[in-house]
Amino acid sequence: MALGLAAMGSYRVGGRTVTVAGEPVRELALSSGFATRSDPNGTYVVEAAYVQYFEPAVRNRLPPVLLVHGGGLTGSSWETTPDGRPGWLNRLLEAGFAVHVIDNVERGRAGFSALPGLWNEAPVMRSLEEMWSLFRFGPRQRYARRRPFGGQQFPVEHLDALAARSVPRWTCNTQAQIAALTEAVGRFDQVILVGHSQGGGQAVHVAAACRQRVRAVVAIEPHGAPTSFEAGLALPRLLVVEGDFLDANEPWPALRADWRATLSAWAAAGGTADLLDLPGAGLPGNSHLPMMDRNGDAVLAAILRRLAQDEPIRPFFPAAARPATARRRR
Amino acid sequence: MALGLAAMGSYRVGGRTVTVAGEPVRELALSSGFATRSDPNGTYVVEAAYVQYFEPAVRNRLPPVLLVHGGGLTGSSWETTPDGRPGWLNRLLEAGFAVHVIDNVERGRAGFSALPGLWNEAPVMRSLEEMWSLFRFGPRQRYARRRPFGGQQFPVEHLDALAARSVPRWTCNTQAQIAALTEAVGRFDQVILVGHSQGGGQAVHVAAACRQRVRAVVAIEPHGAPTSFEAGLALPRLLVVEGDFLDANEPWPALRADWRATLSAWAAAGGTADLLDLPGAGLPGNSHLPMMDRNGDAVLAAILRRLAQDEPIRPFFPAAARPATARRRR
Repeated sequence: MALGLAAMGSYRVGGRTVTVAGEPVRELALSSGFATRSDPNGTYVVEAAYVQYFEPAVRNRLPPVLLVHGGGLTGSSWETTPDGRPGWLNRLLEAGFAVHVIDNVERGRAGFSALPGLWNEAPVMRSLEEMWSLFRFGPRQRYARRRPFGGQQFPVEHLDALAARSVPRWTCNTQAQIAALTEAVGRFDQVILVGHSQGGGQAVHVAAACRQRVRAVVAIEPHGAPTSFEAGLALPRLLVVEGDFLDANEPWPALRADWRATLSAWAAAGGTADLLDLPGAGLPGNSHLPMMDRNGDAVLAAILRRLAQDEPIRPFFPAAARPATARRRR
Repeated sequence: MALGLAAMGSYRVGGRTVTVAGEPVRELALSSGFATRSDPNGTYVVEAAYVQYFEPAVRNRLPPVLLVHGGGLTGSSWETTPDGRPGWLNRLLEAGFAVHVIDNVERGRAGFSALPGLWNEAPVMRSLEEMWSLFRFGPRQRYARRRPFGGQQFPVEHLDALAARSVPRWTCNTQAQIAALTEAVGRFDQVILVGHSQGGGQAVHVAAACRQRVRAVVAIEPHGAPTSFEAGLALPRLLVVEGDFLDANEPWPALRADWRATLSAWAAAGGTADLLDLPGAGLPGNSHLPMMDRNGDAVLAAILRRLAQDEPIRPFFPAAARPATARRRR
């Protein structure tokens, strides 16, 4: 990598002010040298999101990309992969895109709320066992020996590194997350939304609501996306990306039916709706985390080829990263 | 800014594996399209830290800088300031340093643990009122009208933006944070540690323990730093930085006495110990957050001048960012 940047920084979107009253003061030792009394009563800013951005010195002619992580993850999803390769953030910058990376409400640098009575549920964490089967690394019963599906592209020997970047989630913040994402989109004249899983569903939602600002939306195995859209104002291009092994583990057959229903509804409302079936496009073996999979560069290249059909876009990685020849599966 | 990068990415340090057993399964709706049963029993990686790094294409001759945030904050402390100026991360890159930014255990992209029985206390959040007085923006009773100390350099009209980047903290994770920071330092042949507040205390601790790898340690108003050090193996250079208004609000007189005791102990153990008293050095008006203060560039320049006494270092920002002439105070 050798990359010229014109700018980098961060900003926040969304958030609201709440006040706390009537709570008891707490005695705290913040370090060996700093004991204090903490009065929780007062004013707080909650439910804001964090966005980190990078603008390359030499831009392509396409709008900036806003990357939206999935559930239980943060913006670090798009960085160095669990096995230490450059992630899509780097590749998109090399391709000349300005890239904005959100940590949505409750995740990562956005922070979360521990205020009494605000989010009335316990956060949820994902075990390695759950990641193994939910992210389609392998059959549930082969977790113990870490034997993945044949041809698996996720570097399963680095499962611990994935686990270390997983963070707790709540289920009650969807509306706040969509509000923050909507505000982020409102900062652009035109933007390309790329969302993964929960973030893919939210990206489709926001793309339909803010269709004048969104050039295209890429939803990688989304869930929670609407399945009906108002016709009228032109919709941006929608590209849904699906990986491999979708028939092997729950809940993927049902979720696949849902995202295909989203595609049909998008087309019915007059939008261009496109499915990138990775195995069908010569890229077998992808898990639910294609941005971390070994062939992630090739997956991103396939996405950009579909997106940029009408636009010139310069190649962004060397020949070595081209789609691998299909390996034997299962 | 126009910056050439040779590399950027992220990695994790620290962490351990724990298992959960005997907990009930929970019904969850992860989005409108994805209801599932969540089984919390299984294996987790907890107490890892996240580090994001940037390597400029043209490096100076000094070791990389590792930035360690304070309590209730994350690595975003070093980015764009609450009023939208480039932060120390950018300035250090412009000055030719490789920069590594930690989100330590429990903070930001490091994630936190919500596992039953692991961290047996509620996390703590900081209200705007507490920030106002604890960070020495102004007298406690002037929070309501947001009237700061005269000459205050923190952009108090952007207090909400600071609040939005504040995150909950626990008090039980100091050892895990020091372990992660120690592992991070172990990745370098030589490193300069710059720590703020709680992170400053931890940086001093780790610098003394890993003195062969640490070229210098800068502790900005640290707390929790040791006040005795083993003599013997040469200590790195220690620079403690203190701002203004230290006599005005609690608990600063006591904390100042502590960091001065740390300096004395460092010198007694044979190390070079240096105090940068910002008002005394012609930089009045700094809060507890000099990296976000309006004169932050000048503060960083003063730090680098002290650090680089013996080393050539190229100027890293234009004349406009030089120390402002002293303003009238209080």
